[in-house]
Amino acid sequence: SMAAQKKLQGVVAATVTPMTPDGEINLSVIGQYVDYLINEQGVKNVFVNGTTGEGLSLSVQERKQLAEEWVTKGKDKLDYVIIHVGALSLPEARGLAKHAAEIGADGIAVITPSFFKQVKKDALVAFLRDVASEAPGIPFYYYHIPPLTGIKIPAKELLDGMIEQIPTFKGVKFSDKDLLDFGQCVKKNDRGQFVLLYGVDEQLLAALAMGATGAVGSTYNYLGKANNSMLEAFAKGDLSLAQKYQCSTQEVISFFMAQGFGVAETKAIVTLLSGIPMGPHDFHSQVPLRSSLPVSNPNWRA
Amino acid sequence: SMAAQKKLQGVVAATVTPMTPDGEINLSVIGQYVDYLINEQGVKNVFVNGTTGEGLSLSVQERKQLAEEWVTKGKDKLDYVIIHVGALSLPEARGLAKHAAEIGADGIAVITPSFFKQVKKDALVAFLRDVASEAPGIPFYYYHIPPLTGIKIPAKELLDGMIEQIPTFKGVKFSDKDLLDFGQCVKKNDRGQFVLLYGVDEQLLAALAMGATGAVGSTYNYLGKANNSMLEAFAKGDLSLAQKYQCSTQEVISFFMAQGFGVAETKAIVTLLSGIPMGPHDFHSQVPLRSSLPVSNPNWRA
Amino acid sequence: SMAAQKKLQGVVAATVTPMTPDGEINLSVIGQYVDYLINEQGVKNVFVNGTTGEGLSLSVQERKQLAEEWVTKGKDKLDYVIIHVGALSLPEARGLAKHAAEIGADGIAVITPSFFKQVKKDALVAFLRDVASEAPGIPFYYYHIPPLTGIKIPAKELLDGMIEQIPTFKGVKFSDKDLLDFGQCVKKNDRGQFVLLYGVDEQLLAALAMGATGAVGSTYNYLGKANNSMLEAFAKGDLSLAQKYQCSTQEVISFFMAQGFGVAETKAIVTLLSGIPMGPHDFHSQVPLRSSLPVSNPNWRA
Amino acid sequence: SMAAQKKLQGVVAATVTPMTPDGEINLSVIGQYVDYLINEQGVKNVFVNGTTGEGLSLSVQERKQLAEEWVTKGKDKLDYVIIHVGALSLPEARGLAKHAAEIGADGIAVITPSFFKQVKKDALVAFLRDVASEAPGIPFYYYHIPPLTGIKIPAKELLDGMIEQIPTFKGVKFSDKDLLDFGQCVKKNDRGQFVLLYGVDEQLLAALAMGATGAVGSTYNYLGKANNSMLEAFAKGDLSLAQKYQCSTQEVISFFMAQGFGVAETKAIVTLLSGIPMGPHDFHSQVPLRSSLPVSNPNWRA
Repeated sequence: SMAAQKKLQGVVAATVTPMTPDGEINLSVIGQYVDYLINEQGVKNVFVNGTTGEGLSLSVQERKQLAEEWVTKGKDKLDYVIIHVGALSLPEARGLAKHAAEIGADGIAVITPSFFKQVKKDALVAFLRDVASEAPGIPFYYYHIPPLTGIKIPAKELLDGMIEQIPTFKGVKFSDKDLLDFGQCVKKNDRGQFVLLYGVDEQLLAALAMGATGAVGSTYNYLGKANNSMLEAFAKGDLSLAQKYQCSTQEVISFFMAQGFGVAETKAIVTLLSGIPMGPHDFHSQVPLRSSLPVSNPNWRA
Repeated sequence: SMAAQKKLQGVVAATVTPMTPDGEINLSVIGQYVDYLINEQGVKNVFVNGTTGEGLSLSVQERKQLAEEWVTKGKDKLDYVIIHVGALSLPEARGLAKHAAEIGADGIAVITPSFFKQVKKDALVAFLRDVASEAPGIPFYYYHIPPLTGIKIPAKELLDGMIEQIPTFKGVKFSDKDLLDFGQCVKKNDRGQFVLLYGVDEQLLAALAMGATGAVGSTYNYLGKANNSMLEAFAKGDLSLAQKYQCSTQEVISFFMAQGFGVAETKAIVTLLSGIPMGPHDFHSQVPLRSSLPVSNPNWRA
Repeated sequence: SMAAQKKLQGVVAATVTPMTPDGEINLSVIGQYVDYLINEQGVKNVFVNGTTGEGLSLSVQERKQLAEEWVTKGKDKLDYVIIHVGALSLPEARGLAKHAAEIGADGIAVITPSFFKQVKKDALVAFLRDVASEAPGIPFYYYHIPPLTGIKIPAKELLDGMIEQIPTFKGVKFSDKDLLDFGQCVKKNDRGQFVLLYGVDEQLLAALAMGATGAVGSTYNYLGKANNSMLEAFAKGDLSLAQKYQCSTQEVISFFMAQGFGVAETKAIVTLLSGIPMGPHDFHSQVPLRSSLPVSNPNWRA
Repeated sequence: SMAAQKKLQGVVAATVTPMTPDGEINLSVIGQYVDYLINEQGVKNVFVNGTTGEGLSLSVQERKQLAEEWVTKGKDKLDYVIIHVGALSLPEARGLAKHAAEIGADGIAVITPSFFKQVKKDALVAFLRDVASEAPGIPFYYYHIPPLTGIKIPAKELLDGMIEQIPTFKGVKFSDKDLLDFGQCVKKNDRGQFVLLYGVDEQLLAALAMGATGAVGSTYNYLGKANNSMLEAFAKGDLSLAQKYQCSTQEVISFFMAQGFGVAETKAIVTLLSGIPMGPHDFHSQVPLRSSLPVSNPNWRA
């Protein structure tokens, strides 16, 4: 059985992976990154090696090093360090799950393997179960992001029987605009037993109204404070104030979307705001494929 | 200038078009349909000849007859009779707009012509303007439904300069899950000058939280009361009660979606609840193409 | 029963609809257009009021006027004048079919009504049948273009039983890249009873290799000669020469695709080559929505 | 510089990866598999660890073991053993490429990393270049499969300058129905310097007509002879006979598509025909996610 859990409060930042100018992962700045999130953004929870963290583009060895560094540097500072351990390969995902448990992560998350698109519910749940079974002592989160994976199985269908298959199942990172599906996940959360973290940052308020219990996303790297304030306003019943925050963050996100809104843009803005070099990035390039990293756009350089 | 407007209160039902067993439009039951909506559903606003009404599948003559019957039978009973006059053909849409104004409709709405997919903003606004100009005395609503039309121009972009081009512009029927776009339309509605009617019924509460001022949809033919109650709960700040209503209507909609959730299903359920024969329909058939109308499924017959 | 048919030889041009600077249809240049196609392009077959002809964007009255003018001016000059009579509305499509038969068209064609996407085979065949039944004396062609309609029913499935439902069924305008579906239509054409006209001009040679019997397309307005030469080379077994023609027309089409490859571009190039003003057009605008027709790009003006 | 190359003749089979009932890779049957392909299918070229081989779902270690076994068992028997070394992670793809060169593979192939969809040409070419540079002595093939990756950069654009960036570039596995793009690749192959292997088996004849020089696909595991005969008929100019072969293989592929046409179905049919247990499979399951492998459908068991 799992140890008593800290309560997950406030937004969760999906972290970027700092890289050197040569495209190697840069572990040396993780400590600073932790402090920046806490001190500048008021964020005490992180989701490491996910989409924003380029997890699937890293080697297994790199992912383990990053996970370890985040757990080590976050100790006694961060509340929640969730390590994304999903991979296209089941053996690799299992190995990453086992490692995350060994280093003391606060939870693991797994995305649907998505190269093949015709995945069935039973096969997917079995995949998730086999990964989760390698980390029996820590919470398991299912990472639902159909727009990226192309796998359309509704989350509400996956939730049916999930806890029986995966005793450590704790919740969902729900990154989709389908709020009928989300609302029906909320309905299944009737005893508040799950954590339903919404992942489309620009419409978090809508999901809160439907019953979201929290949020994970890339924009909390630079819009953490505003969003935590929105969570507070919403919790107090001040919808009008919450709308003001959402309206304001929508403006920012809309601006970034016009530039591309990819990992490269997120790295650029976090570099600028934090002063920590997150590595080569280029506005408008969306995805740094590492080998092709261009010179940073000087306008966005820290 | 337009006459003083009644205030639009409560949901707007997107009406089905009653047909005879031979597939001809059945004007004779419109009066009963008006009474059913008011008495059984608490709905006093209708959106006629839209998607649910199979507007684009009707002949111009049929559309005019239906519009006239709704205005006549709704007189002194309904608050708002909005006639959808969009068409793939500009001359036909113009003719329908002129007719709607002549018969005394409370407003017109126009969908994006969608056979060709590469439509640009300027061309679309010009199309809308030309149609609206035929009905200079009544409010004009833009009908935004990218999932059906395939035209992806964000509504917020269309709103920029819309009022200058179309002096009768009054609002948007926004039938999309993109709440970033919707939220930015809300922002442009800073003086409350527009009506922003949300059109994805199963997540109306989310849109209310973002700033929707009302709703148009097919489900208000049979879930009118529950949704009007949800609007009231939300207006009073009772989000918890509003969530209960949304959760309950989501269950119903989810059930119907499993059957197909098309016009045929809507006709079947309205026939069942109202006792008014809405015409040939078949559960699981989605769209009645008129010539092929099968015998009604007896389980759903009134 | 139908009268003995002329043999359909050579490519079929999907004609544009000439318009005046005001966006009205311009019947006065159809005669010149006929002569241009025959004399300059070597094309003696036309497909009128189709996608390229903006058929669905015209009023019923305009479509009838255009059909009549093409039949009249093509008399004793053109071999085949096929009138597209498809419409979203069944009553309108029926009226157009009846009219086409009355004026002496050589055939009619019908596209899948496509506003609603969940159309079933039986419903679609019934729709086609009802339209075809209004023109019992002339050949009927099914116009298959899933990329534009979004209706994915394979043509091979529609062909099963088509002739029993529609005695005048003569063939398919197959505008899709799915050559498995096309190849299986070819297999059903074992007695050469059908005409299988391929509609993706830039890969016609591939379809010929799979068994196409001809071609319909917009590019035959300006690449008619080269394509008729390709048909001849292919018929003689000179695949190498056919490849040269296909390679050459691919270059041209690829160039136009970079500009947009819509109706507006087709009008521009036909205006340029024929000297006949096809009406307002603008390179890069793709679709003229009539009300918004900009000043022609002088570089492409005749 | 590379050693003189054997000529690539006949189709290339995209091999499945044999697995034990426990979902472990089963190296022990590769030798039999080689003999089956040669003796029963007349196929002497293989594409290992590709899509059909579930390459991206295997661990790096498993992929290396499989590559080694195919090269070893194919020695002096197979003509071409091409190892697919693509991966979402650049470091892993580089390691696989280096290994393939070390074990004596006849070539490597790399798919576009596809988790992130907004990849630009320059970034993609740089990725491919970095992988290819680890295997400087053997031919490099770019694996183009937009329907699976979602990356839409046309192959013809990638070919521009490819040879300058990647001196070992030898050709493309082109798995797409866009024959305009393919035809323009053919045009760039004016000196016959490239190998253009078509990858949509059910329409190979169409691609041959456009200029394909060969084929790679999963169906050559069980339709190898018929397709090699088609290649021969086509080479001799007997298009009519080639059409008969294509028509016949289309029937078979169409049947399998109705069952799902995924890796699981391919394993089932190869198990049946070869008598070699390819591992757990289930008709209609499409993708074996390993952890969830059901008992084989007895109807398809060898």
